[in-house]
Amino acid sequence: MLLNVGTFIRSATRFSPFIITHSSPSSFCFSFSPKQTVSFALQSSQMASFTTLSQSPPKLLFRQLFEKESSTYTYLLADCSHPDKPALLIDPVDRTVDRDLNLVKELGLKLIYAMNTHVHADHVTGTGLIKGKVPGVKSVISKASGSKADVFVEPGDKISFGDLFLEVRATPGHTMGCVTYVTGDGPDQPQPRMAFTGDALLIRGCGRTDFQIFTLLKETLLYPAHDYKGFSVTTVGEEMLYNPRLTKDEETFRNIMENLNLAYPKMIDVAVPANMVCGLQDLEPKAN
Amino acid sequence: MLLNVGTFIRSATRFSPFIITHSSPSSFCFSFSPKQTVSFALQSSQMASFTTLSQSPPKLLFRQLFEKESSTYTYLLADCSHPDKPALLIDPVDRTVDRDLNLVKELGLKLIYAMNTHVHADHVTGTGLIKGKVPGVKSVISKASGSKADVFVEPGDKISFGDLFLEVRATPGHTMGCVTYVTGDGPDQPQPRMAFTGDALLIRGCGRTDFQIFTLLKETLLYPAHDYKGFSVTTVGEEMLYNPRLTKDEETFRNIMENLNLAYPKMIDVAVPANMVCGLQDLEPKAN
Repeated sequence: MLLNVGTFIRSATRFSPFIITHSSPSSFCFSFSPKQTVSFALQSSQMASFTTLSQSPPKLLFRQLFEKESSTYTYLLADCSHPDKPALLIDPVDRTVDRDLNLVKELGLKLIYAMNTHVHADHVTGTGLIKGKVPGVKSVISKASGSKADVFVEPGDKISFGDLFLEVRATPGHTMGCVTYVTGDGPDQPQPRMAFTGDALLIRGCGRTDFQIFTLLKETLLYPAHDYKGFSVTTVGEEMLYNPRLTKDEETFRNIMENLNLAYPKMIDVAVPANMVCGLQDLEPKAN
Repeated sequence: MLLNVGTFIRSATRFSPFIITHSSPSSFCFSFSPKQTVSFALQSSQMASFTTLSQSPPKLLFRQLFEKESSTYTYLLADCSHPDKPALLIDPVDRTVDRDLNLVKELGLKLIYAMNTHVHADHVTGTGLIKGKVPGVKSVISKASGSKADVFVEPGDKISFGDLFLEVRATPGHTMGCVTYVTGDGPDQPQPRMAFTGDALLIRGCGRTDFQIFTLLKETLLYPAHDYKGFSVTTVGEEMLYNPRLTKDEETFRNIMENLNLAYPKMIDVAVPANMVCGLQDLEPKAN
């Protein structure tokens, strides 16, 4: 049967639509039994060791969100089996704050942290806007960034949300204060671990890692702050093999980095001053 | 400490780089013990029932890939614990075929199927190009699409890759031949199930589902063919609650769809004829 191209785009209106009957679950975590709580969202894979070492149910709610103009990834994480469903956002962008907060609301989460991996030069962080819209949310950035925030973290610190936590690793190079947030290590934490690398490591791209990222297990899932080619995730093992910069020796790496001849970043003069104060440079005089 | 903005973008070159020493794993599945094979990639969450019903290790390798111009998602799935690592691509785009095939190669996979959820009107499918570049790959589309392909599927059919499979569900409306591919049901298949909905359901967007998508469990992960707002995944339960079109009664739904006043699709005159022949409209005369 040949498709009638003329009716192609109108076809959605030609079928009788339908009425959906559904209950309204008060939560996006479904409990099937006291020991079987199923998260209502994408999670990282549960490693065999997770299965054998622990009876704890999976509970990380995870969403990867994309801001097209700056090709920035924002990550939403929550402990979905905790009564409060505490959540955090990593690297939110000012332009997509309303999208992100609406999703937080729809999923019934309680946002407690709005975090940055570093002071971004290509977009204005959404942390300041979020703090204004959701009272009680704390902004988080590394102490070494020199930026303003409610909470300053240092390498080795743990950031808890419910029974889950992120570990802070120093990954300077792109900026002095770049950190990578890694999901916790342990039988009741997601396996493989997930590392939010900011700009320290991009998929098959630049990375200055100070060995901190590559000391993670090879199956660790790496989530960068940007991707310009449409990739969404990689692993430590893949980048060890295929990252065109990080597989080179010291001299070659230095030559590559010194000869990138990159254009002056479009947003840097706006973004960096704003991001040093949580994205609230315009609001600050009023606040003082 | 205040960050010196002047050195911000040059800082990556100011640290001594490093040499990475690593072994070259022949595979991206790591076997820690005969019963503990760990996939080297993102997987959907392993439901509690999976943990209790089966000792099988997780094995789905899953990647979500994005084509920015048409905001199209391409999905790569593989059975990573099978010796051949058989893989398939859902909704590949012609512009990103080389990216996708390079990733398949890097991950050591054997591509066996290049599939479409429907005849796309906004981009040219990559299936024809893929068939030319990787001998042996078979193109797959629904029989109801009226398009050319190597394999025609019908509702209820199963598409196997290694020990995993996709189930075909009819979800007409956007086009006559739209199908949704759903990961298999069973203790050794990924849980929650993952549904690749094509254009039948977009995240918080239009969908004509004929009830087929909403008969899946609420925690089923839904992966659409497009997203224009930066979302990457949703669930059946979320769309039942928050999809602005699918939560309406029949009359309201019809009114919405009849008054969308959408612009004439830019690519439709090129894309649809090309996609009816696997994206190879220019090559066909030579082939005949």
